[in-house]
Amino acid sequence: MSYNLLKGKRGIIFGALDENSIAWKTAKLAHAEGATFVLTNAPVAMRMGEINKLAEECGSEIIPADATSVEDLENLVSKSVEILGGKLDFVLHSIGMSVNVRKGKAYTDQNYAWTEKGWDVSAVSFHKTMQTLYKQDAMNEWGSIVALTYMAAQRTFPDYNDMADNKAYLESIARSFGYFFGKDKKVRVNTISQSPTPTTAGSGVKGFEGFLSYAEKMSPLGNATAQDCAEYTMTLFSDYTKKVTMQNLFHDGGFSNTGVSQEVIEKF
Amino acid sequence: MSYNLLKGKRGIIFGALDENSIAWKTAKLAHAEGATFVLTNAPVAMRMGEINKLAEECGSEIIPADATSVEDLENLVSKSVEILGGKLDFVLHSIGMSVNVRKGKAYTDQNYAWTEKGWDVSAVSFHKTMQTLYKQDAMNEWGSIVALTYMAAQRTFPDYNDMADNKAYLESIARSFGYFFGKDKKVRVNTISQSPTPTTAGSGVKGFEGFLSYAEKMSPLGNATAQDCAEYTMTLFSDYTKKVTMQNLFHDGGFSNTGVSQEVIEKF
Amino acid sequence: MSYNLLKGKRGIIFGALDENSIAWKTAKLAHAEGATFVLTNAPVAMRMGEINKLAEECGSEIIPADATSVEDLENLVSKSVEILGGKLDFVLHSIGMSVNVRKGKAYTDQNYAWTEKGWDVSAVSFHKTMQTLYKQDAMNEWGSIVALTYMAAQRTFPDYNDMADNKAYLESIARSFGYFFGKDKKVRVNTISQSPTPTTAGSGVKGFEGFLSYAEKMSPLGNATAQDCAEYTMTLFSDYTKKVTMQNLFHDGGFSNTGVSQEVIEKF
Amino acid sequence: MSYNLLKGKRGIIFGALDENSIAWKTAKLAHAEGATFVLTNAPVAMRMGEINKLAEECGSEIIPADATSVEDLENLVSKSVEILGGKLDFVLHSIGMSVNVRKGKAYTDQNYAWTEKGWDVSAVSFHKTMQTLYKQDAMNEWGSIVALTYMAAQRTFPDYNDMADNKAYLESIARSFGYFFGKDKKVRVNTISQSPTPTTAGSGVKGFEGFLSYAEKMSPLGNATAQDCAEYTMTLFSDYTKKVTMQNLFHDGGFSNTGVSQEVIEKF
Repeated sequence: MSYNLLKGKRGIIFGALDENSIAWKTAKLAHAEGATFVLTNAPVAMRMGEINKLAEECGSEIIPADATSVEDLENLVSKSVEILGGKLDFVLHSIGMSVNVRKGKAYTDQNYAWTEKGWDVSAVSFHKTMQTLYKQDAMNEWGSIVALTYMAAQRTFPDYNDMADNKAYLESIARSFGYFFGKDKKVRVNTISQSPTPTTAGSGVKGFEGFLSYAEKMSPLGNATAQDCAEYTMTLFSDYTKKVTMQNLFHDGGFSNTGVSQEVIEKF
Repeated sequence: MSYNLLKGKRGIIFGALDENSIAWKTAKLAHAEGATFVLTNAPVAMRMGEINKLAEECGSEIIPADATSVEDLENLVSKSVEILGGKLDFVLHSIGMSVNVRKGKAYTDQNYAWTEKGWDVSAVSFHKTMQTLYKQDAMNEWGSIVALTYMAAQRTFPDYNDMADNKAYLESIARSFGYFFGKDKKVRVNTISQSPTPTTAGSGVKGFEGFLSYAEKMSPLGNATAQDCAEYTMTLFSDYTKKVTMQNLFHDGGFSNTGVSQEVIEKF
Repeated sequence: MSYNLLKGKRGIIFGALDENSIAWKTAKLAHAEGATFVLTNAPVAMRMGEINKLAEECGSEIIPADATSVEDLENLVSKSVEILGGKLDFVLHSIGMSVNVRKGKAYTDQNYAWTEKGWDVSAVSFHKTMQTLYKQDAMNEWGSIVALTYMAAQRTFPDYNDMADNKAYLESIARSFGYFFGKDKKVRVNTISQSPTPTTAGSGVKGFEGFLSYAEKMSPLGNATAQDCAEYTMTLFSDYTKKVTMQNLFHDGGFSNTGVSQEVIEKF
Repeated sequence: MSYNLLKGKRGIIFGALDENSIAWKTAKLAHAEGATFVLTNAPVAMRMGEINKLAEECGSEIIPADATSVEDLENLVSKSVEILGGKLDFVLHSIGMSVNVRKGKAYTDQNYAWTEKGWDVSAVSFHKTMQTLYKQDAMNEWGSIVALTYMAAQRTFPDYNDMADNKAYLESIARSFGYFFGKDKKVRVNTISQSPTPTTAGSGVKGFEGFLSYAEKMSPLGNATAQDCAEYTMTLFSDYTKKVTMQNLFHDGGFSNTGVSQEVIEKF
């Protein structure tokens, strides 16, 4: 199934690690919908991943970039515009990592150097990406920038740890930069607040399986999958959502507005 | 421009009064995107409107219905399924009216019979429509129901009067019924919270021109037009937003998340 | 324990049915804090209740009023000002009832006459009360009006039925009327979104016990009790919250911002 | 006016710079309400300020602490418990600073070293304070921790720059740590989202005067002053708000829920 929704559009997709990644599925669908784009990921992630296979399938080039490095991002953006033959229409930011989570540090016992690292990778990288795009004037009018986030930014999920605060910061960047990108360049900026998704990254969170099952039972339409997210992202990159900006969009089968479900209450 | 986003889909569109209506533009675009649908409006609105012209352009039939009458709605739904040759994939509810506003009654001096009438027309009609669809099992799985609303449901705009409370009730219906429609039938229900739009209905609100100009200056991407709304609605009716449900989606050029803009603050 | 927080203040308290009622506990505490007030309830509720005992303890008079009757409310307000010897400083609205819930009607099978009745009793009664206070100019400057609500206005709790929509309408009234009462009379209007509370009314909801237990486990500080709510209400009636208005205030031990708790997730 | 609301309670108050400070007024009122507490501020701020005068009036000791230094905070907390003679009942965090704002850097042209500094001072300092309190088990059950924030965390105010993102992170910390402090220690954590306030710090923001006037006209009860905020804080430190936690509480005369006011719209 495809509609040519992104016909002729150019973009950059961050964060495709392997075929479980939301970014991976987004890339495949964007290709099917007629887009051309550059793939990027951190050099270290690329060694582990299979991004070359994806690049081949999509006819894409790969430009490694550490998303916390302004220099890398400047190179990424300028090269992408050159390779793709014009300014960009869309960017997907799908990056997140907490060292405290990885190392099993409790939220009440943070190592602040790790907190800073996770904040830089998961949140500030989004600002750095947009500041680079803005300064290079690399986005076309009515272009669309999307970052992935999670509802822990609004409500506490104890195992999500400092990623909650990082996501709150990320969503705030979307609003703050969205104001200026809108006013000055007619570019829209939004975040998608996605269901818990069994990607290679997501699965690393402690107690993920139990949580996935809980979320499934709390969501009237069930959890949104990575493929669902790729599809939703297509609409946000398309020309049919030009006036949606500075929003955090819940894509979660209804979880966010369900206080409790029949299946969950039955356990009490 | 069209993408066949609604190819083969069937629906009902409420509230197309004249060519300024959001519903009118939605109908035209849904037709271009490959949908077939029934048009409906209140008998009295149809006498004033030019809906026949629209029906002709879209190859649609018209079934008059008072959206506060369960009997009319039952007839509308069963006839629509019959005419269109199968269950429905989408429904647009674009209905709203406050007698207190029309008659110039202040919010602090309501005539409660009028309050009740406005509530029934603007909000309960959405429940009645969904209850009818639900009972007749008239929606296909993964169908999409959308109602139009306004941000006065969250924040006070003094001239919007009791429509604010009606919209709050309407948005609550979307969540409440969305839960059951999701669980029981895999159907999604959302509201679009649209910029102030100079439709024939919208323009009736006191001080509308000044407000439109204020909203334009407060929205980084400018106000969303009726045509923009029709386009956004296509994405919500499409198969690419299957896991978005029970949401109130701001479609307003960024107004809702702008605390103040440079242009506005310069006046102070 | 008491602080003279309401010393010299006059008010009206709606909805004290029996000693489990939030309004009952609020009355007792307001008395201890130095306030004088009139008690009111629907004539039918008063026959069942023990309000005379409360009135005696608080030195209060009782004025029966059907809160859906503007005439009754006009009598209540004018008599209260007369009895108490001056304009009012606070009003507590603690009224709610759904006929659909009482009669076991599902949300997807509403009897709309009952829907209308529940809406009038639970939500419009708040507008009628404020409109009467406003027209009679019966509130002192910096007075405080509070209504009790529930989080079902934001998220769906399937058994809460049409009360969710009524509470959404009620909260919208608080904002809408709060704007005018603020601007014109310097009076504040807020709602308290209270934990599920085992009052005589609350307990009538289907599956209430299971839900209470779930909410207890989801709230980091446990459910807020009726006594807790009475205490919180004192602060909102006091002179120390003069600039809090048009807000919906969650009083729920943290439930509203907890995505999931350790105890709940362990069941999955 | 005073009620003995904080009789016998012990606490720490951060951020009293001079008599315009919210923290300064909070200290004076907490003293009047019967509390004893330690005052603290950054060593550099203390050289500029007049905190000695305040300490004398309140019978308080001063312990300088850089709120980004865990070591300083550990010293502050342990000394405070020692000096005050027991565990703490309340803490006020009133700290914020953006180097980008001070140096006139636009939001679209951030110096990321400065961004990091502002984030550490304005937001992470709150986590560090709570982590220190938590590890030293320095809070009494039913104690109350409050941080001051601003609505830019929800909506963009262009001149507020990266402080918006810092405040979003701060508010997220309140929720995240509030969960654990509630579950483990029965301590509540909230933020007050205050009107723009002409403190010495607040006035430094570009275009502050115009913004203050705009906010005044948009708030049905007018802007909340520093004194108003001190009063509201008393209620949150008192025993009458024990079940309020993980909330962001708007204290702004109604600004946050006003879409537009009559006075503002008249300019358009």
